[in-house]
Amino acid sequence: MDFKTTREHAIEIFKEALEAANPQRCVLEHVLLEGDTLRIENREYNLRRYRSVFVIAFGKAAPSMARAIEEVLGERITDGIVISNSYPPFSFSRLRFLLSSHPIPDERSLLAAKEVLKLLQVTREDDLVIFLISGGGSALLAMPSPGLSLEDKRKVTEMLLVSGVDTHGLNAVRKHISQIKGGGLLKHALPAQVITLVLSDVVGDKLDVIASGPTVPDSTTFEDAWRVIEALRLEHKIPPQVVVHLEEGRRGNIPETLKEGEFDPEKVQTVIVGSNFKSLIAAEKKASEFGYNPIVLSSQIHGEAREVAKVVAAIAMDVERLDIPIKKPACIIFGGETTVTVTGSGRGGRNTEMALAFSMEIMNRNIVGLFCGTDGIDGPTDAAGAICDGKTRIRARQINLSAREHLSRNDSYTFFERLGDLIKTGPTGTNVMDIGVVIVNHT
Amino acid sequence: MDFKTTREHAIEIFKEALEAANPQRCVLEHVLLEGDTLRIENREYNLRRYRSVFVIAFGKAAPSMARAIEEVLGERITDGIVISNSYPPFSFSRLRFLLSSHPIPDERSLLAAKEVLKLLQVTREDDLVIFLISGGGSALLAMPSPGLSLEDKRKVTEMLLVSGVDTHGLNAVRKHISQIKGGGLLKHALPAQVITLVLSDVVGDKLDVIASGPTVPDSTTFEDAWRVIEALRLEHKIPPQVVVHLEEGRRGNIPETLKEGEFDPEKVQTVIVGSNFKSLIAAEKKASEFGYNPIVLSSQIHGEAREVAKVVAAIAMDVERLDIPIKKPACIIFGGETTVTVTGSGRGGRNTEMALAFSMEIMNRNIVGLFCGTDGIDGPTDAAGAICDGKTRIRARQINLSAREHLSRNDSYTFFERLGDLIKTGPTGTNVMDIGVVIVNHT
Repeated sequence: MDFKTTREHAIEIFKEALEAANPQRCVLEHVLLEGDTLRIENREYNLRRYRSVFVIAFGKAAPSMARAIEEVLGERITDGIVISNSYPPFSFSRLRFLLSSHPIPDERSLLAAKEVLKLLQVTREDDLVIFLISGGGSALLAMPSPGLSLEDKRKVTEMLLVSGVDTHGLNAVRKHISQIKGGGLLKHALPAQVITLVLSDVVGDKLDVIASGPTVPDSTTFEDAWRVIEALRLEHKIPPQVVVHLEEGRRGNIPETLKEGEFDPEKVQTVIVGSNFKSLIAAEKKASEFGYNPIVLSSQIHGEAREVAKVVAAIAMDVERLDIPIKKPACIIFGGETTVTVTGSGRGGRNTEMALAFSMEIMNRNIVGLFCGTDGIDGPTDAAGAICDGKTRIRARQINLSAREHLSRNDSYTFFERLGDLIKTGPTGTNVMDIGVVIVNHT
Repeated sequence: MDFKTTREHAIEIFKEALEAANPQRCVLEHVLLEGDTLRIENREYNLRRYRSVFVIAFGKAAPSMARAIEEVLGERITDGIVISNSYPPFSFSRLRFLLSSHPIPDERSLLAAKEVLKLLQVTREDDLVIFLISGGGSALLAMPSPGLSLEDKRKVTEMLLVSGVDTHGLNAVRKHISQIKGGGLLKHALPAQVITLVLSDVVGDKLDVIASGPTVPDSTTFEDAWRVIEALRLEHKIPPQVVVHLEEGRRGNIPETLKEGEFDPEKVQTVIVGSNFKSLIAAEKKASEFGYNPIVLSSQIHGEAREVAKVVAAIAMDVERLDIPIKKPACIIFGGETTVTVTGSGRGGRNTEMALAFSMEIMNRNIVGLFCGTDGIDGPTDAAGAICDGKTRIRARQINLSAREHLSRNDSYTFFERLGDLIKTGPTGTNVMDIGVVIVNHT
């Protein structure tokens, strides 16, 4: 068992996945300027036709995405705003940078939203507006419906979460108390020509979920939002002004969110430029180059990290034993985002916890597993994740480290730190959720 | 979405998997008599060369397996014993049936073991002994090492489990306080010619784990067993006569279990005639016939049922969305055995719980999932499992049934009972763990 080479391969494959999620590269791959013609996928825009070109970038990857668009469009950009949660290490020539708050929106999020809406107020039919959206956008840009406060929004969200609301219900309500979410930005930008480039950080790449879908039509209504509140019996628990707002909306006294069919689809183009799936495909290609038979399991793996580890290990072990679902040497690639129910007081993130649970399953097998977050930050730690193999548990025992005990304390970071098996990339400036790379060699 | 047809397909595919695990069929497929020649896989036995032919069948599927061997060998069988936990609905012509106890061994298990050892005492080099082993065998046939009692064995096992021992450690100890486990029966049968046909009910089909491996060499030693006791600090907690026994064994005063290399491998043939994997392959074939692109994920899926459901759903949903890892229409097939951490007071087994969790993930998708135990008994219920689809949750709502609430109460049986979606096969007389069949159609 040459774990050294296999581990290097796993790391290289992960790096390839990371590179495919590089926000700058993602934008540049999708935006082509030839003379005055801007090509984005199957559409062409003659830039001479537009009076002004506005760029609005927000999300954790906004600076890199904005930098790329500046690289392509340069002085053709009339004006624009970049909003993120940390100062970029570079400056913009045509765009203004605004620092905002994440994950909890605050006054800066309100201010950023105000600036964006102010910019969109001047747009006309012969303008071009380019939105660059990435994860975290929902907190970085916040504007409650008229008459409501950030605090009202926060309370409602909290009440809904405590009541066990599902994602669909949560979003139906949130979109109906916001001026941004649920197509709010698109509504403000129309009738200008609108292009949205999206770096997806959500399971299933649902456009109406990424940054709460500010530039895509909303399929939910005030009626839906109200039913969620009723079903969870929250009428008397949420702030009364929110109740009044939703009631007024139901009665048609407040305009609905933007719906499919209410605008000319020719006016709107939305393109996912980077996603977990795209990264998995890049990883798959790299795995093939190394000579592994690759299989991409899914880009939306979720669930309790240590349980997901068991399922992935079960698949890897039958690859080893029976060559199903693919022949050895094989590389199983998957993505998504798991969760950890913390019961211990240890240190670790979902990726290191998954690696630890995985290492307990594959003892003595010729298997290597790497589990990392693409943002470089695994939960509350400074690692992206960890790497392990069939000898990890035995190596741990040799230095008196118990995999079982560390797992029971949610202390996976410490476990891999002591083994020197943490993967540290530093903050990557992108986020397409997590990636798992599992290599199964011949025994 | 024609869920009706798809559901029928899923049920047919499961039935095919069940049929592949039919103990009688499994034995008949592997045992061929032509004149005096008995053919089992790549080996041939000239029955004229043997003075006597003995058959020893034990396990939950023993009656059916024994019936098949009687069908093939008939009067060529000299003598034999069939041991199981319920009376078969048919009688044997050459074999004696003994009723024994499962899952807790009792005096009947001791008596059964005594009868088997008595039979093996008379075997000679020119005899043929055929063992037919299936799940549950370990409890049905019990014989502690000389000087120890069933109660001693029970206490040790309990102490080990409470201390959080792993399977390897547990088996190392149990095999060293038994006359049956860890090759004990093989030791008694040799130097006769020995054939073992196994119906596997364990993850990974490990021969030394199925019924505690009575006819395969043991890779663990008294020293290993002792180290497990020491590591868990149980020296002063387990019965002193067990401590003495293990200590004496370490010192070489009690013979070790049978080891690889201590017998002529030509004398021993062990064949897995039925297993979860074999059933999955049968299901795969049937799925192909129905026109689905089949993928066998793994035959050793384990973990918390509701979390495993999320992973399987994630795979199914990316099949629907992206045609990875296979193209629609697809059939994802897997096996193994999940667990349920019971926190509620509801009614259900691991398969119905998995189906319920799965139905919550696949809402509105063109996906059907069937999850069933091959023994026909899902946990403490009279169902084998349940079937669900993308409309299950909505149908449930229409009759005021909350998937979320039923899952939180571990009340999956009631949920599917009210929907009429339980799968009931009755006890099947076989057990190759559980099977999952997930069909993803075009939207």
